[in-house]
Amino acid sequence: MTRMPYKIYLSEEEIPKKWYNLQADLGDRLTPFIHPATGKPCTKGDLTPIFCEGVVDQELNRTDQYIEIPEGIQSYYQMYRPSPLIRAYELEKKLGTPAKIYYKFEGMNTSGSHKLNSAAAQVYYAKEQGITKVTTETGAGQWGTALAMACAHYGIDLQVFMVRTSFEQKPYRKAVMETYGANVIPSPSDTTQVGRKILIDHPGTGGSLGCAISEALEVALNTENCRYVLGSVLNHVLLHQSIIGMETKAAMDQYGIEPDIMIGCAGGGSNLGGFIAPFMGERLQGKNAIRFIAVEPASCPTLTRGKFTLDFGDTGRMTPLIKMYTLGNGFIPSPTHSGGLRYHGMNPILSELRHGGELEARSYEQSEVFEAAVYFAQVEGILPAPESAHAIKAAIDEAILAREEGQEKTIAFALSGTGYFDLSAYESYQRGEMIDQETTVEVLEEGFQTIPTIE
Amino acid sequence: MTRMPYKIYLSEEEIPKKWYNLQADLGDRLTPFIHPATGKPCTKGDLTPIFCEGVVDQELNRTDQYIEIPEGIQSYYQMYRPSPLIRAYELEKKLGTPAKIYYKFEGMNTSGSHKLNSAAAQVYYAKEQGITKVTTETGAGQWGTALAMACAHYGIDLQVFMVRTSFEQKPYRKAVMETYGANVIPSPSDTTQVGRKILIDHPGTGGSLGCAISEALEVALNTENCRYVLGSVLNHVLLHQSIIGMETKAAMDQYGIEPDIMIGCAGGGSNLGGFIAPFMGERLQGKNAIRFIAVEPASCPTLTRGKFTLDFGDTGRMTPLIKMYTLGNGFIPSPTHSGGLRYHGMNPILSELRHGGELEARSYEQSEVFEAAVYFAQVEGILPAPESAHAIKAAIDEAILAREEGQEKTIAFALSGTGYFDLSAYESYQRGEMIDQETTVEVLEEGFQTIPTIE
Repeated sequence: MTRMPYKIYLSEEEIPKKWYNLQADLGDRLTPFIHPATGKPCTKGDLTPIFCEGVVDQELNRTDQYIEIPEGIQSYYQMYRPSPLIRAYELEKKLGTPAKIYYKFEGMNTSGSHKLNSAAAQVYYAKEQGITKVTTETGAGQWGTALAMACAHYGIDLQVFMVRTSFEQKPYRKAVMETYGANVIPSPSDTTQVGRKILIDHPGTGGSLGCAISEALEVALNTENCRYVLGSVLNHVLLHQSIIGMETKAAMDQYGIEPDIMIGCAGGGSNLGGFIAPFMGERLQGKNAIRFIAVEPASCPTLTRGKFTLDFGDTGRMTPLIKMYTLGNGFIPSPTHSGGLRYHGMNPILSELRHGGELEARSYEQSEVFEAAVYFAQVEGILPAPESAHAIKAAIDEAILAREEGQEKTIAFALSGTGYFDLSAYESYQRGEMIDQETTVEVLEEGFQTIPTIE
Repeated sequence: MTRMPYKIYLSEEEIPKKWYNLQADLGDRLTPFIHPATGKPCTKGDLTPIFCEGVVDQELNRTDQYIEIPEGIQSYYQMYRPSPLIRAYELEKKLGTPAKIYYKFEGMNTSGSHKLNSAAAQVYYAKEQGITKVTTETGAGQWGTALAMACAHYGIDLQVFMVRTSFEQKPYRKAVMETYGANVIPSPSDTTQVGRKILIDHPGTGGSLGCAISEALEVALNTENCRYVLGSVLNHVLLHQSIIGMETKAAMDQYGIEPDIMIGCAGGGSNLGGFIAPFMGERLQGKNAIRFIAVEPASCPTLTRGKFTLDFGDTGRMTPLIKMYTLGNGFIPSPTHSGGLRYHGMNPILSELRHGGELEARSYEQSEVFEAAVYFAQVEGILPAPESAHAIKAAIDEAILAREEGQEKTIAFALSGTGYFDLSAYESYQRGEMIDQETTVEVLEEGFQTIPTIE
């Protein structure tokens, strides 16, 4: 048999034409969204003023294991997908491990991450419904960039509320979004009621993701033919991201690869959830015994130190209540360079899987994550996003363990994106200026106080 | 027949195992390098103190049409290649042109450009020869980044002299190079004789590529087991870059594609030269009638307004004399955002082809280039480097012409890299702050005065 290539690219015709819906496997294990005013499960009608109909149907779909990808999305996927499944030959050699290491790399499109997979779908459904404008928030800017690209493709207006500190620290991210035609506003802004209130209560604040979500929601609710779109956390986002796992599975099947361990970083959960979706589905059906590992920053330890309970998705408390692992909607993580992993909550599916024991979780300090990132860049050639480097760190640890135990494990991890826009973080690491700030029990307690008490 | 996919990826086994050496087709049409002291052609012995032996042999090889790619380079190519040949379906549709447009995209590796193809080869030959350290210069930083990656891969030390203005304006480029282990010094520096002299003569200067070359050369000549490597201009660099054209040809042959026009941007000429190499070879053998077009910035119009004569490759006049199109080794281009196209000279092969009429040339102002870049980004999804956008502009112009003339032409262009590190330029364009500065006859005259007079 010939040596497996470094990279497996499916042909464009082999790109899967269906998403995998983990909700169908979990069924009643999942708690529905709860309307905070009534305490009752949210109906489709509660959600459609905010989200496009197409994605609301998906959000509430607990029956269909596979959902057809519309042709208008398939053709866009064909422009920038498939993403390669890469065999980390060099890393294996360098580590001297008997483990086989694979990674699915989503950074080969201009947005630099997997975010485009859901941006494409959400904007497509908006267009189908006759929506002319969407709003969103962005922190580090990867989601905003992906959405700007998708909006340029489908011809939809986009207003992005960008967390003010990022807006000021990452002018280039703003420039990319504007190149793709987006209107980018620093949040909190004086263009919304909630923004003005925050500016009065906290003059000079750098903003937060939760606050930017509230502003984007307000604009969507008060503008004709406008809806809100979100880059992570929700189940329909996870569904769209399952294209990652579906491709991974198709590629692995071609080469008879059966992973023992699958690893991904987890902020809102969309990359990890999408990557493992069909594999986790099989495990829930008793067809495999894969270990699934979520990796998060020690500064925002949602799955490792959070509570599994009902909480709001945003600081402004405008979303439904979501049953998930949470640190409290008012939780303030210590500063970290992994902006994409600084969310207080976690996707409900992954939360349930963690609760049920099917998903393991661990956390790392950022300095050890950057150590792994630099090592990986030098050995494998790809400069990873700090978020993705959490998965790298865990994969390396598992590969070293396999070496110590003399076990020929197959490890697969999700490399969600590139670090081209995170070089100030790399610089700070190289200068030895990176600080690991402990998340104390006091900080956690403070966050937990913002979890609402439900009767 | 099924519709051609958006992207053609060769399999790893299909990546060509030979480079194409255009020197074999041109033979005596090429003038050898001239030793400035003796006025005689340079020998191998004149060049090996500066360059590695392997590449000197290639630089002087006018007989072998194909040169075998060593396995140690092939395996590295397999890590980040092939690059995709993309059919610009969306661009064709948007332009309403009957032309078929293809582009070969070299931006899918972390260095973000084609530069890695020659960096890999040069560092490999250095390693083979027992060299432990290489030096180079970098302007915009793409070459330095590519070289840092290759040096990390092969385990060789790297010292980069980075033009001071870039060093200060592009700290992130420096951070990438350092992540890959390079030592980056702003040029002019006080670490070399030539640097110190320039600092005394021109206190506070921002430096130039020519000056950085002189510093890198000085260190290479005065350090044991150290050689100098260069990212463009020379014939061995063009040879290594011919992997681009060889892959393009292999992919086109699979689908029966025959280009009528091939386009590339030209600074030192390595991307264009590599892209067209096997096709130009066939044209020189009378096997096709492809039109080849070099595109350059109006601010540095080497091929369109330069002289075809012997000149030095660097400002410090340390290189051999090279027969090429040149604006004079002391030419100072007006400020432009395409740092990679600001070189006073041009690769000797391309210069000869331009002189002989096989290669056309045209120039564009940077504002029209950025207009094309933004248009392309929105339509095709890829954010191009400003350098590469010169080729885009010409391809769009040719596609519009095909529409007006009702001709179903096949246009192929080289998209040499991404614009992730050029976002301040995009910002300036979007703000309407981009200025086109005319290259006056006076500016040209001044440059021409620095061309040496050869008896």
